[in-house]
Amino acid sequence: MKPLVGDSPLLSSRRVHPADTVVTVPAACIAGGRLSLGGEGIVIMAGPCAVESEKQLMLTAEAVRAQGATILRGGAFKPSTSPYGFRGLGEAGLKLLAKARDAFGMAIITEVMTPTDVEMVCDYADILQIGTRNMQNYALLDAVGKVRKPAVLKRGMAATIEEWLLAAEYMLSQGNSQVILCERGIRTFEKMTRNTIDISAIPLIKRISHLPIISDPSQGTGHRDLVAPLSLASLVAGADALLIEVHPDPEKALKDGAQSLTIEQFRQLVPQAQAVAQAIGRTITGVHRSMS
Amino acid sequence: MKPLVGDSPLLSSRRVHPADTVVTVPAACIAGGRLSLGGEGIVIMAGPCAVESEKQLMLTAEAVRAQGATILRGGAFKPSTSPYGFRGLGEAGLKLLAKARDAFGMAIITEVMTPTDVEMVCDYADILQIGTRNMQNYALLDAVGKVRKPAVLKRGMAATIEEWLLAAEYMLSQGNSQVILCERGIRTFEKMTRNTIDISAIPLIKRISHLPIISDPSQGTGHRDLVAPLSLASLVAGADALLIEVHPDPEKALKDGAQSLTIEQFRQLVPQAQAVAQAIGRTITGVHRSMS
Amino acid sequence: MKPLVGDSPLLSSRRVHPADTVVTVPAACIAGGRLSLGGEGIVIMAGPCAVESEKQLMLTAEAVRAQGATILRGGAFKPSTSPYGFRGLGEAGLKLLAKARDAFGMAIITEVMTPTDVEMVCDYADILQIGTRNMQNYALLDAVGKVRKPAVLKRGMAATIEEWLLAAEYMLSQGNSQVILCERGIRTFEKMTRNTIDISAIPLIKRISHLPIISDPSQGTGHRDLVAPLSLASLVAGADALLIEVHPDPEKALKDGAQSLTIEQFRQLVPQAQAVAQAIGRTITGVHRSMS
Amino acid sequence: MKPLVGDSPLLSSRRVHPADTVVTVPAACIAGGRLSLGGEGIVIMAGPCAVESEKQLMLTAEAVRAQGATILRGGAFKPSTSPYGFRGLGEAGLKLLAKARDAFGMAIITEVMTPTDVEMVCDYADILQIGTRNMQNYALLDAVGKVRKPAVLKRGMAATIEEWLLAAEYMLSQGNSQVILCERGIRTFEKMTRNTIDISAIPLIKRISHLPIISDPSQGTGHRDLVAPLSLASLVAGADALLIEVHPDPEKALKDGAQSLTIEQFRQLVPQAQAVAQAIGRTITGVHRSMS
Repeated sequence: MKPLVGDSPLLSSRRVHPADTVVTVPAACIAGGRLSLGGEGIVIMAGPCAVESEKQLMLTAEAVRAQGATILRGGAFKPSTSPYGFRGLGEAGLKLLAKARDAFGMAIITEVMTPTDVEMVCDYADILQIGTRNMQNYALLDAVGKVRKPAVLKRGMAATIEEWLLAAEYMLSQGNSQVILCERGIRTFEKMTRNTIDISAIPLIKRISHLPIISDPSQGTGHRDLVAPLSLASLVAGADALLIEVHPDPEKALKDGAQSLTIEQFRQLVPQAQAVAQAIGRTITGVHRSMS
Repeated sequence: MKPLVGDSPLLSSRRVHPADTVVTVPAACIAGGRLSLGGEGIVIMAGPCAVESEKQLMLTAEAVRAQGATILRGGAFKPSTSPYGFRGLGEAGLKLLAKARDAFGMAIITEVMTPTDVEMVCDYADILQIGTRNMQNYALLDAVGKVRKPAVLKRGMAATIEEWLLAAEYMLSQGNSQVILCERGIRTFEKMTRNTIDISAIPLIKRISHLPIISDPSQGTGHRDLVAPLSLASLVAGADALLIEVHPDPEKALKDGAQSLTIEQFRQLVPQAQAVAQAIGRTITGVHRSMS
Repeated sequence: MKPLVGDSPLLSSRRVHPADTVVTVPAACIAGGRLSLGGEGIVIMAGPCAVESEKQLMLTAEAVRAQGATILRGGAFKPSTSPYGFRGLGEAGLKLLAKARDAFGMAIITEVMTPTDVEMVCDYADILQIGTRNMQNYALLDAVGKVRKPAVLKRGMAATIEEWLLAAEYMLSQGNSQVILCERGIRTFEKMTRNTIDISAIPLIKRISHLPIISDPSQGTGHRDLVAPLSLASLVAGADALLIEVHPDPEKALKDGAQSLTIEQFRQLVPQAQAVAQAIGRTITGVHRSMS
Repeated sequence: MKPLVGDSPLLSSRRVHPADTVVTVPAACIAGGRLSLGGEGIVIMAGPCAVESEKQLMLTAEAVRAQGATILRGGAFKPSTSPYGFRGLGEAGLKLLAKARDAFGMAIITEVMTPTDVEMVCDYADILQIGTRNMQNYALLDAVGKVRKPAVLKRGMAATIEEWLLAAEYMLSQGNSQVILCERGIRTFEKMTRNTIDISAIPLIKRISHLPIISDPSQGTGHRDLVAPLSLASLVAGADALLIEVHPDPEKALKDGAQSLTIEQFRQLVPQAQAVAQAIGRTITGVHRSMS
């Protein structure tokens, strides 16, 4: 692979920082109370695409926690292609996420969409998420770069890996060193899947960067039946975490039901993921080791 | 072509609003003092990619005005793929644009990148521009939807036409009816051009929408030698305006010099554009009719 | 633009052969009996996607000839994505094309799909066509390179311009110097059009190569309502010919009816094309000059 | 996922043929002398991109056989983007492949590029390969459909999954039921990898089709350092075989050296692949089970 850009390597480059960056977040459900992302353990982040109601969120959180997820995902601010679509519960959704955190000891990841919301989202979330449409929203990147919270940066829908790393550089250069990259599929001509998840980006990022890299097989495929195989593929390719949409009743989901696992499907996936993780010498944090 | 989305047509649809939307902006350099965009006349917007200095801007503005451009383009806030690239002069750049407007009677178009800047940019600009990276920055679209200034919405780098119209709908549904669409090239596998300018989007938009549609052959190709033929192609395909980068010394431009026309190249382009416009029964606003 | 490949330029390069290549074909309908392609004149090639019957072909040929088309297109061997689709009349279709040539004095262009058919197709056709799916069918390119008939090489569905020129090089290096390139759209993520016609490829090819370049707005867009504006766009961008699908009853066409012009639409297009051609100092061969 | 095409399912569809198709080939190196592809066992196909010399081929064959590869790959007819590139040894290359088969008891897979070569290639090969550029070379598909040899059909560079299955249908409808699909990456805008390997295509094909599906991580990535992680990812996603380029001295390879594993890299990959295969309840044919 060619060196990244110009002569001076980026802050995200392994040439600048050879050791893996390990991000830590508080998670009472884990022994020691802190969860590491980017080290040996693999983390499962799961939950609904969007926070819809207290019942929906609590039911999902309890179920995914019981199977081994340690981070709860759920959108309170939802980017919607149409202005007439569901745009999320806003701060009320953040409050529900905080309630779930307290109830189940999980860490919380949720999206922030605009600079003026960064402070409020930081009041509730353990990890901020910058979505695919905002990968090059530079005012947002600058604002998230100024806080000291871990931030997941999703790859833009049609971003090259170089552009993605340069977007991460916006945050790193503002002083936020806890940047986590997330492969979520790129846009191609293929029509049977929602996106084409670029699994090769995972080991490639690992080689050229020290930042943790995670995978979103739900957005990456758009079909719940493809989430399990692409989760396993992401793991063996080197992903540090999986970000998986789970819904107690996907047919009634307000957003992205087609790509949400049922709770039962999620229950089946975790031991498969654990077995595959162990085959490559890793383990899923918070899940008992399988008896192979 | 299939109907756009669902059963209820969008505010941008010709089914809702059969007549062409015509946007008007003040322009002292035009007889009557107001410039129409989206009617019979074709408008030329020209100027540097980025405002770099008073000398650079004034020199360019004077030259493009002399050839028939009636709207001056120039970025004060510049999206830069790298955080270490030139990001524009900010408000100082806006002040220079206002000075050029006063000096040459041209209207001003300039980019706004984040909601909190909308009010300030409105103080100086006649037309706001939302760039390709921000096509789905919904907080920005909402904010621009709330003001009553014309706004050019560039197509996202990998946006479908449907997504682009839905982004316009964010502004239309907030009450800003003066939305102008701008084709600026999409991302493909081709490496010899910066983007692939989708000329077919121009007549397609004309058929399904009443909004004005303009073309940016500079961003669309990335090569100054391709700007003239793609300008002519855009016109005969139905574009209501051309947005063209011109720089007095492209080799020394701080941004996008490779795709900027020299003043001499721009001088040669305008009469060709006028001849071609007349061949399809239109004329370029502010340019004397050619003797064919 | 960067130089093409390596240090030694290709046979297709303007560095090797600075003057435009002009291809000539016999056409009794033209004064002098020979038609030039790649010179000042612009040529219109029109006809049905597929030869379906004698009546359909003769009716179309007569109509397009009457409006100024000098080359008749029509497929006897049709590539079909599905094996169960219409695959053409084969040699019977070639005989019908020859009959139309005799009746109307037009030159004939038709596709050849496999090396063993090259000799037979040469017996009937004036210009061979290599389709998009066969752009890198090297045995076919070698075979067509060995004959001395003009050959149109369509750009592959996802071919870069460099790969396209290298495919042309297969024929040129075998001694066939009468290669004509045809832009017919590339595959992108856009769903409203069948392909995205890359108009910028036309002037780019003109700059780096001496070969004639033509445009196929029917395949390039997939919608008959977009064929006229994209025909005009192709002309002002520098195309040497237009390849247009016309059908007497598109709704009943066995292939690609949605992108075929009606005879009436074709009748309206030609004078527009002539007016636009004149605006850039060219003229359509075989069509009376318009009174502007 | 939507049903594939129209109302009548394809011959490749699981609705027509619910059970997995299992292809068998003679392989003396395996107990029983026959190798199954598409059943429980996973097959490793390895060897050089192109057959260059007897020494190169024999050395590679011996090494990959020793590690567990049971099928030897090697191109005698090589598609080359440039006519001036290496195009393979032709029949001399086929003879070397046959010699390696005899020496090591492996089955042979090699590419056929044109219908008139099908008979000759069948004389030497156990499995025919149709390359990405020929996925829609219908005369070739028809010819391979008429023989009774297993055939690997690589996905076209920009083919949708639907088009790929329709290309397979050409062979199936001619009576050749031993069709094997091969994902080898698709063309996207990403520049750091040669192609973007679409891992999601593997489980998707498994769901909608009964045909075996294999993966080519060498072509799919273009970088030898990415071959191992993408091999593992392909396996856990459901691939029935891996097709891997191995060269004794990649720096001196006549073709595609950058993506060829060294023999040592291949030696390291096989036990990892075996461990991962076992984690999902499969095993690599011809490799001793690992002690986990």
